[in-house]
Amino acid sequence: MKTNTVFYHAGCPVCVDAEQLVVDTIDRERFDVEVVHLGESKDRISEAEAAGVKSVPALVVGQNAYHINFGASIADLK
Amino acid sequence: MKTNTVFYHAGCPVCVDAEQLVVDTIDRERFDVEVVHLGESKDRISEAEAAGVKSVPALVVGQNAYHINFGASIADLK
Repeated sequence: MKTNTVFYHAGCPVCVDAEQLVVDTIDRERFDVEVVHLGESKDRISEAEAAGVKSVPALVVGQNAYHINFGASIADLK
Repeated sequence: MKTNTVFYHAGCPVCVDAEQLVVDTIDRERFDVEVVHLGESKDRISEAEAAGVKSVPALVVGQNAYHINFGASIADLK
């Protein structure tokens, strides 16, 4: 069974850069990768917060949130 | 040809957590992954700084540095 990973971003330059390179490193044979734009999908913000996401870009692997550099805080996306 | 990635850390809890999960997501068929403990290999600090690393844990993919959460600043490792 593949592990779910979700890459949350907000279309910012830092986000796009991270998406192109970090998301590309993920082994798709073992991980399902979903990319979510929180600026466009505000209904997913609460889910991201529940996973521990405080800023974007962030990668959630299973139940763990990893903030990658800093683009924008979740609070600024609401 | 595989792309070089280097995961810099300092043995801190945030680093170990990121190493176990984030490094595990990387597709080893396409990326070479080196793990460097900057607390033990202080001679690699200048190389990390040159790649843009300001804190650990950090993942350098090719020429791009991605800081993952925050464990310790490079300055504190010197």
